[in-house]
Amino acid sequence: MCSMRRARRSVENELRRHGHARPRARTGPAVIRPAGDMAAPASRGSLRDLGEFRLIAALKRSFATPRPELIRGIGDDAAVIRWSADSHLLISTDLLTEQVHFDRHFASTYDIGYRGAVANLSDIAAMGGQPLYVLAALALPPSCSINDVRSLYRGMMAPCRKAGVALIGGDTSASRAGLHVTITILGRVEPNRVLTRNGARIGDILYVSGTLGDAYAGLRLLQASARSQSIPLIPPRFHQFLRARHLRPTARLALGRLLSTRQLASAAIDLSDGLSGDLGHLCRESRVGAEIDSTALPLSKPCRTLAAAWNQDPMDWALTGGEDYELLFTVPQDRQHRLERLARSRGEPITPIGRICSPRYGIRLKMPDGTTRNIAPTSYEHFRSSL
Amino acid sequence: MCSMRRARRSVENELRRHGHARPRARTGPAVIRPAGDMAAPASRGSLRDLGEFRLIAALKRSFATPRPELIRGIGDDAAVIRWSADSHLLISTDLLTEQVHFDRHFASTYDIGYRGAVANLSDIAAMGGQPLYVLAALALPPSCSINDVRSLYRGMMAPCRKAGVALIGGDTSASRAGLHVTITILGRVEPNRVLTRNGARIGDILYVSGTLGDAYAGLRLLQASARSQSIPLIPPRFHQFLRARHLRPTARLALGRLLSTRQLASAAIDLSDGLSGDLGHLCRESRVGAEIDSTALPLSKPCRTLAAAWNQDPMDWALTGGEDYELLFTVPQDRQHRLERLARSRGEPITPIGRICSPRYGIRLKMPDGTTRNIAPTSYEHFRSSL
Repeated sequence: MCSMRRARRSVENELRRHGHARPRARTGPAVIRPAGDMAAPASRGSLRDLGEFRLIAALKRSFATPRPELIRGIGDDAAVIRWSADSHLLISTDLLTEQVHFDRHFASTYDIGYRGAVANLSDIAAMGGQPLYVLAALALPPSCSINDVRSLYRGMMAPCRKAGVALIGGDTSASRAGLHVTITILGRVEPNRVLTRNGARIGDILYVSGTLGDAYAGLRLLQASARSQSIPLIPPRFHQFLRARHLRPTARLALGRLLSTRQLASAAIDLSDGLSGDLGHLCRESRVGAEIDSTALPLSKPCRTLAAAWNQDPMDWALTGGEDYELLFTVPQDRQHRLERLARSRGEPITPIGRICSPRYGIRLKMPDGTTRNIAPTSYEHFRSSL
Repeated sequence: MCSMRRARRSVENELRRHGHARPRARTGPAVIRPAGDMAAPASRGSLRDLGEFRLIAALKRSFATPRPELIRGIGDDAAVIRWSADSHLLISTDLLTEQVHFDRHFASTYDIGYRGAVANLSDIAAMGGQPLYVLAALALPPSCSINDVRSLYRGMMAPCRKAGVALIGGDTSASRAGLHVTITILGRVEPNRVLTRNGARIGDILYVSGTLGDAYAGLRLLQASARSQSIPLIPPRFHQFLRARHLRPTARLALGRLLSTRQLASAAIDLSDGLSGDLGHLCRESRVGAEIDSTALPLSKPCRTLAAAWNQDPMDWALTGGEDYELLFTVPQDRQHRLERLARSRGEPITPIGRICSPRYGIRLKMPDGTTRNIAPTSYEHFRSSL
């Protein structure tokens, strides 16, 4: 969720602009361009011209400082620091901004705190680590009551306590406009057990946990309700399931630990930007390509049902919906059998969805008819779309 | 600067409301009230009714979780975590909000980044630690250009690089309104060498580094210029000095290390809220009182000159101005001679300003005529004054 390279997908905004149009990934141009120099002509322009990913690449080039104890700095789900012989420190920070990452018309401050915490916990899960401590910095607008603030902390601490994470500090301030929440998480991981984005090798099997697109489907339902738009006739339990997947996502901490401690995965990332965007990050960092089998994408029945009712393709939601906080990871073929056995015995839902290919192959989606098409590594870029 | 108990003083706002009135500390009622329960009637009210310090006290009671490795959680300049046999980890997070902590009419994004970094570095200095890593989460409004963002990072990294601190991550997002900057800092300190707020003992000598009130004086000058108000006829180098003390403060890292490694201080805190507020925090945490000698307060000539030109008392600025980022610390009498000798040899400017008394004595200021008066432990509280 964090580390500077990561843009958070904000489907709220996108939908606000596009109504019920198909996710932007398919309609717009590819938004990730070769990183330019921030000092070049673009530096005199607007953030919209540069785009978030180029901004972050330029910041990384300008300001990242190598240090001997720094195992991974800017460029992964969390930074990794060598701290003692038996443990590395993991740290990640994450910003949630009103009207960009959440909408208080249908998300309570409890929901906002809860999702913010899960986004951070998910970063630690994607590194194979154990989360330990959390800090929160809140800028509170006049519209926030004491109960709102208490609810925000309660929401944040619900998944944290479940994961054994303690609140150790933070900062509070008034805000002239909008609620802003920055959560910082500290974790621990054993040396040589860190999962990173850059370890995928050609031939590895690509896996994903859980089901994809649910959080986006839930968001669409919440937005429709908030605007008193008609809701399709799908079973109430489907509504509940999808809303909960948006408002109460699950960080895959146990799965991350399994992949890390048993050395099952070669690379991992958490799905915050959506499969196409996060797979793009993983492939770029590992310098590989990938092929996804479209028929293998795990879609829940509620998600498929809602998509059908709205006459949309749930695969689009799975690819670009974002904020599922599932893990995307790669596994060498010779460890596949062991992984599947262990995951089954632990009740961790995982699905093989494709394989890692040569970088020349690019990132492609295999359709049911056997044809393939390129997947644009599309992620939501804040500055291009919301400024 | 951080840890949840700390409110940042925002003299900008205060002046916006009061014009050139005397700092609020002397005119308003004491703003720190006994902490109440957030679930009590106040919970249904507004943040303004509760006040920031009661909010934070209530959050601490509700959410702080003891853990065996946690040496200090919420309630000091930084949290302290036992991590390995030879080093504790220090961590602190700090939020800067537009129109609350800074004013872009006279502070560039470079200035904002610079001061934000110093505020964080100062937290590590106050704990006696060595700062190591920094993360930044930025919410960027449409009015920010690429150059603004680059300048912000440059400003932030200028004091960080000087202190050997590396940027290892962060998050960027669009903001619908206002620039919000959250900086998180990681540092290290040897076990048994941590400086905390709660170690002051009756009879200890109270010291402060540098001079006080300069940052506030500089702010007043900057505001007057931005509003095209008349500037008093004081030497241009005084203007420069005071502006720099506001825009380019210095974190007292070397002094903090000296106090910690040589075990000279019994307690320490950095001056972000102003002497009266931060001395209040230190006394409350140590359960002691204090007497300050008003004639001993270190005031720079530029500060005294400007105050005289505006017909104000510079002692008020020293007591309540805030954001000087100097260290306030207590030293047992038997270590006083050694401290003064070491500080002199290192070129660290320190001044004894009073002594620690019984808690019954309260916190009092000794006037030149020998009388004493209570110092209200006044700090700027965001929710009371700016919402």
